[in-house]
Amino acid sequence: MFLKNSWYAAGWAQDFPADGVKAMTIIGENLVFHRGLDGRLLCKADLCPHRLAPLSRGRVEGDHLRCMYHGLRFGPDGRCVEIPGQKLIPASVCVRVYPVIERYGVVWVWMGDPARADEGFIPDFHGLDHPDWAYRPGRMEYDANYILINDNLLDLSHIAYVHAASFGGGEQQASEEWADAPVSMTPLDRGVRVSRWVVNTAGAPFTRDITGPLTDQYVTYDFIVPGIFLLHQLTFKVGAAAASGMGPPDPSLEPAARQFTCQAVTPFTERSSCYIFAFGPEKKFAEHEPVFWQIGNMAFNEDKVMIEAQQRMIDANPAVKMKPLSMDSATNHFRAMMNRLMREEGTLAVPKTVDA
Amino acid sequence: MFLKNSWYAAGWAQDFPADGVKAMTIIGENLVFHRGLDGRLLCKADLCPHRLAPLSRGRVEGDHLRCMYHGLRFGPDGRCVEIPGQKLIPASVCVRVYPVIERYGVVWVWMGDPARADEGFIPDFHGLDHPDWAYRPGRMEYDANYILINDNLLDLSHIAYVHAASFGGGEQQASEEWADAPVSMTPLDRGVRVSRWVVNTAGAPFTRDITGPLTDQYVTYDFIVPGIFLLHQLTFKVGAAAASGMGPPDPSLEPAARQFTCQAVTPFTERSSCYIFAFGPEKKFAEHEPVFWQIGNMAFNEDKVMIEAQQRMIDANPAVKMKPLSMDSATNHFRAMMNRLMREEGTLAVPKTVDA
Amino acid sequence: MFLKNSWYAAGWAQDFPADGVKAMTIIGENLVFHRGLDGRLLCKADLCPHRLAPLSRGRVEGDHLRCMYHGLRFGPDGRCVEIPGQKLIPASVCVRVYPVIERYGVVWVWMGDPARADEGFIPDFHGLDHPDWAYRPGRMEYDANYILINDNLLDLSHIAYVHAASFGGGEQQASEEWADAPVSMTPLDRGVRVSRWVVNTAGAPFTRDITGPLTDQYVTYDFIVPGIFLLHQLTFKVGAAAASGMGPPDPSLEPAARQFTCQAVTPFTERSSCYIFAFGPEKKFAEHEPVFWQIGNMAFNEDKVMIEAQQRMIDANPAVKMKPLSMDSATNHFRAMMNRLMREEGTLAVPKTVDA
Repeated sequence: MFLKNSWYAAGWAQDFPADGVKAMTIIGENLVFHRGLDGRLLCKADLCPHRLAPLSRGRVEGDHLRCMYHGLRFGPDGRCVEIPGQKLIPASVCVRVYPVIERYGVVWVWMGDPARADEGFIPDFHGLDHPDWAYRPGRMEYDANYILINDNLLDLSHIAYVHAASFGGGEQQASEEWADAPVSMTPLDRGVRVSRWVVNTAGAPFTRDITGPLTDQYVTYDFIVPGIFLLHQLTFKVGAAAASGMGPPDPSLEPAARQFTCQAVTPFTERSSCYIFAFGPEKKFAEHEPVFWQIGNMAFNEDKVMIEAQQRMIDANPAVKMKPLSMDSATNHFRAMMNRLMREEGTLAVPKTVDA
Repeated sequence: MFLKNSWYAAGWAQDFPADGVKAMTIIGENLVFHRGLDGRLLCKADLCPHRLAPLSRGRVEGDHLRCMYHGLRFGPDGRCVEIPGQKLIPASVCVRVYPVIERYGVVWVWMGDPARADEGFIPDFHGLDHPDWAYRPGRMEYDANYILINDNLLDLSHIAYVHAASFGGGEQQASEEWADAPVSMTPLDRGVRVSRWVVNTAGAPFTRDITGPLTDQYVTYDFIVPGIFLLHQLTFKVGAAAASGMGPPDPSLEPAARQFTCQAVTPFTERSSCYIFAFGPEKKFAEHEPVFWQIGNMAFNEDKVMIEAQQRMIDANPAVKMKPLSMDSATNHFRAMMNRLMREEGTLAVPKTVDA
Repeated sequence: MFLKNSWYAAGWAQDFPADGVKAMTIIGENLVFHRGLDGRLLCKADLCPHRLAPLSRGRVEGDHLRCMYHGLRFGPDGRCVEIPGQKLIPASVCVRVYPVIERYGVVWVWMGDPARADEGFIPDFHGLDHPDWAYRPGRMEYDANYILINDNLLDLSHIAYVHAASFGGGEQQASEEWADAPVSMTPLDRGVRVSRWVVNTAGAPFTRDITGPLTDQYVTYDFIVPGIFLLHQLTFKVGAAAASGMGPPDPSLEPAARQFTCQAVTPFTERSSCYIFAFGPEKKFAEHEPVFWQIGNMAFNEDKVMIEAQQRMIDANPAVKMKPLSMDSATNHFRAMMNRLMREEGTLAVPKTVDA
């Protein structure tokens, strides 16, 4: 049901404490995070192999983690190094360890074969840690399968309806320009690129001095496994779309404003997910950050309300199939790619949660 | 599990708004109600065929209903008339519509084959809208299967025990007269008629001037699929039962008071149900309506407490069968009739929730 | 899943009212308790055989219990003696009765074949009702299978970790002396005896006048089916362990203080349990009872937090097996004995909940 060989965004690094432990479930696997003596994050299965007590109720002792039920102590490599009242420690008494990396202010954990944990697969999730942007980190939890959240991000035509009040500013016309703008889709190695021009559309108030009230906007995002959304939005004077032949903006054109947002969908379980996002304006427009934040949160909550309602309807109608329409091309492409990647790793020897 | 070809009481018409939508689940099917331009109620499956979002999170546009996830718009006949970004609309993109009628202040919806939705099957549920009665509409929700509520209404001997404090007025003797009164049962076309005389029993305080303290009471009700209860209670001077040969009251006898109540049980799901009731005295005794209302609510809540407890015990003891007793004749007759009707329609082609 | 032929501790007798009924579920069976005319407790299946309403919503009438749905009345032997509106009462209309005894201030109910309900199997649970002890009765409910609570009581090495803050007084050294003390295990007829000396260990403040700050402590408990824990702890001057050859204390040695606690684990269902305990000092140290009570409650709550967390992990990882270690010998012995006893009674004819 889940892709194993992938980096998952476990959350914002600032939410992982310097001391003590943090428990989290990702793709249905119970994890415990703690920091070693050098401050680096360690991640293990949250399950003492002895009586299956959670190690997240344990005690950090230097680089080690001690189960506080019967006192077994585990090293950073997951091997047990102490069993109270027992001299011999079988090598089979150990916990699985997961590769974990902090980058871009995010904790990334690799849920598959550690030997394949290539840092090169970590997406370009810059923003929060980048000097060009005035960002705040955001986080929401969903009572829904992550694929429905991926679907949502892969078909932005929903902005016209779900976000009529937030991103659409309540203006029906601006919203529908989104739904009707033709979309170009380009397959990527582990994702898909979706691009469009929205032409002759109302710009943000703070670019009016440069562009006038109407603008051409080039919106392009990469959506990458398992659910990484990296969106660039460039605001130009009207005419830029035509001058670029409706393709990527001509390099000679200078955008009046840029926007970038990076977002990640992480499955907790089949029916619960985490969604993190960094969102804001360019640093030079930092004074507008609170408005960005307010509208973004309003919009992301609109998504959550709709998707959780959709999940309930799907659960209540298990026999009913979705009906594909033209707008679903990126959604369907990505779903098919995920299915192919999951099939391909079906025969992989992924480490067991607890060595048996 | 449920009878399809039947009118179900969806609720009191006053609870269906003039604008916007109302979601409800009946016999496990998710429905959305909204009113058309002429104010008439429309009822559809609450499921957009595209991505299975609930149409009850949609927007009413004249006679049309728009899904507010990706903007599909549906006409009053359930056909999709607009798909943003797509010119061609396949006929298969549609939602099921359900026949719906407002009558007697109640919304009736037909859950089976629309071609068989005969208005003649709507029961004589008058009362709330009738000049002879001083009625208030009531409504309760049950965490129980509707059949247990039907059972309760089909065996009024429970009045002596469940309702000892309310209808029995705390008087043990009056209560037991109920349980012991012989019952006559008459099969009806889609129901059963249950009648009894309770003789020499205490009358309501407001009929004492006419009858004296003791009365003969003729109580008869029709119970009709899927769970419609229509009860008449006639209060006579003592002697009326004998003068009528313990059969239906002799036409020459004038009752000192009448009572009528209409009630309907509607399954939401296998384990949740709705119960609506109109209840009160004759208009000429309207001053006593608050007392009727208070006692009725107390009694209906006594039923709810007992039936929900019974449901929990049934669920906890799935292997234990009920043991039929003499008092269960109407209950058993009605259960058997419902089972027969459900078997008979088992081979019917009922429209799918969403056309596939 | 549960042992039938056993006395289960239903709770403290003081919690069973003089009038009215008390409902409880033990090993997944719904029970109703009420007192007869002589004050003796009676226990029946909480299920009217007629429509499966709970008898715990019924009315006590002398020695009889009446179902308050349709009025069936049952005698102390479980036979129905009244059916409203029906003269003939089939012998099959009856409810199962369970042997029940009050002893040591506890209500004991036998869940198996009544013919085998031997009072001799009731464990020596004295304490609350004994003049030597200053005890208070305690009770907790667990969202966990009872076997996990049994496991906990069968391996007191957990005291060093789970109870580092309570029984260990926050002193790491004293705690670890517990985990490292060698344990001797003796099989009993329907249980196991576990004994150990903890030598040279800090004594309770109130024995220092007699023993000095350090003591030898002999701790021995019997753990008996289905989950009865009877623990004696004897405090001696240092040297007593050696003088006793590390076996049971030499009879010539006089303990400076004694402690006794009796505890019982009772399954409600597969995932919920009850835990009762009597706990306190000798009467001569009664002034210290509140401290005993405070520390005991703190410790028992530490167990509950850990065991419920363990249960959630077990449920989330159904395929993962526990890994046996040296410290699990008593735990494994008792689990194996319970399994053997349950297998042996698998072919027993245990009375059905309701006679069919």
